[in-house]
Amino acid sequence: MTTAQPIRMSAAQIEAFLDEVFPQLHHGGRTYFVEEVGPMTARMRCDYHERHLRPGGTISGPTMMALADLALYAAILGQIGPVALAVTTSLNVNFLRKPGQAALIGQARLLKLGKRLAVGEVSLYSQGDPEMVCHATGTYSIPADR
Amino acid sequence: MTTAQPIRMSAAQIEAFLDEVFPQLHHGGRTYFVEEVGPMTARMRCDYHERHLRPGGTISGPTMMALADLALYAAILGQIGPVALAVTTSLNVNFLRKPGQAALIGQARLLKLGKRLAVGEVSLYSQGDPEMVCHATGTYSIPADR
Amino acid sequence: MTTAQPIRMSAAQIEAFLDEVFPQLHHGGRTYFVEEVGPMTARMRCDYHERHLRPGGTISGPTMMALADLALYAAILGQIGPVALAVTTSLNVNFLRKPGQAALIGQARLLKLGKRLAVGEVSLYSQGDPEMVCHATGTYSIPADR
Amino acid sequence: MTTAQPIRMSAAQIEAFLDEVFPQLHHGGRTYFVEEVGPMTARMRCDYHERHLRPGGTISGPTMMALADLALYAAILGQIGPVALAVTTSLNVNFLRKPGQAALIGQARLLKLGKRLAVGEVSLYSQGDPEMVCHATGTYSIPADR
Repeated sequence: MTTAQPIRMSAAQIEAFLDEVFPQLHHGGRTYFVEEVGPMTARMRCDYHERHLRPGGTISGPTMMALADLALYAAILGQIGPVALAVTTSLNVNFLRKPGQAALIGQARLLKLGKRLAVGEVSLYSQGDPEMVCHATGTYSIPADR
Repeated sequence: MTTAQPIRMSAAQIEAFLDEVFPQLHHGGRTYFVEEVGPMTARMRCDYHERHLRPGGTISGPTMMALADLALYAAILGQIGPVALAVTTSLNVNFLRKPGQAALIGQARLLKLGKRLAVGEVSLYSQGDPEMVCHATGTYSIPADR
Repeated sequence: MTTAQPIRMSAAQIEAFLDEVFPQLHHGGRTYFVEEVGPMTARMRCDYHERHLRPGGTISGPTMMALADLALYAAILGQIGPVALAVTTSLNVNFLRKPGQAALIGQARLLKLGKRLAVGEVSLYSQGDPEMVCHATGTYSIPADR
Repeated sequence: MTTAQPIRMSAAQIEAFLDEVFPQLHHGGRTYFVEEVGPMTARMRCDYHERHLRPGGTISGPTMMALADLALYAAILGQIGPVALAVTTSLNVNFLRKPGQAALIGQARLLKLGKRLAVGEVSLYSQGDPEMVCHATGTYSIPADR
């Protein structure tokens, strides 16, 4: 169970699942979307919205952290399916550059998917800009009874 | 400059400063408050609000991360004053327990306040409950020209 | 199991256990000692030794990381006893100041001791100096079958 | 200065520099080698040696952390040259799998190289095994006066 499994949920299925379990994500308007799910990977997008801003038009740290966490969570769902609810146990975030006035892309990759613990990393970019704006690693506790 | 300085901003002054520079914090209603500022410390509160929730009535990870970041930022402002804009360079967060349906308290303490870099830790609690729900450490870049 | 338990191993018992399971620690001469174990806490000491040095007489980062890891591990052993072998899953370290030419003290405190996961923080000091030189947080996986 | 520069030091030059400034690395016998330096990258190797072991023949956490730190440091030296002494300010390490009885490879990549701060990530592998055993991110303070 430490390597990639066949995908158990499509991007659309994960998005519908997130809508159901995290409806507050869309408080103020839908901005988070699952773009792609692959083996041990997921890509999510957070559209540019006034409520995510900081002065100077840059996107807030908490918005970036939320996207990083969600993208890793989506990658885990793609591997273990909707029956299991993983819980974030830690997130380590490095803010590298100020993102511009554009959508934010989070590309997640699982480094380990064990029976009890998943670990992954995420790279965040402003849409259309190759410079990484933020990098995060996260760990997730996986329920034993799935 | 690596130890505590006389406080340069009161809790009320920091709150007014945050209102000015981070008005988006209050998008959907004011929930973040500076409760106390001391030498190398600050305590902030995030009131319970529907938009901070996760299913089961627990408070979301991004809400906790935002409070941790703000409390550390408030502790830095208390030491260096409003002229200097510190930037978060990293945040490492451990989620320990699910917070209950109550306000969240963030107690921040600076471990180092150097000329260019500040490092601190924050403990988060549900108001009225002694069990820590979340612990974070953050690093901040301090502008050279203050 | 998320709060302090009666201590199951004394400082001397933990030291003997570390000698047995980590004999390589003492490669080049014994420098790591368990000074005290309490409820959810432990204090360890690393004596000053040539092999831990960096130029200028300061102590190396890996030496500090090893002490932080060991002190957290000792605090866990004090709570769960020698039958269970906890494994470090992550360590986040902030280097604050250069330690001087003295023994290093690591004061560990567990923030959470769950059935499967323990989380703690450690503060490192040069012996006799009140300024923190390093701060770390660590997470440990605890075997299910104890 | 946030992107790759022409390499200022070769792998051999960095190895000679590390020998000079960190002679204690080789206490007990030379095990750390710089294998390759590229634009914003470096690969280092730590040969299998009795003093790096943990019971069961696995390699110790501090040995992995030291290799991660060194590989990032080598990548920075490759970009900024030997005149500037970068200092590790933080290291966040996730231990993924137990490494086997083989040399350890650390592949480092800088995510940001600013005027005052560098951030990078490192992936550690057992030589000849494609499974990542450890992942780390580190931040480094860069002297202003170079």
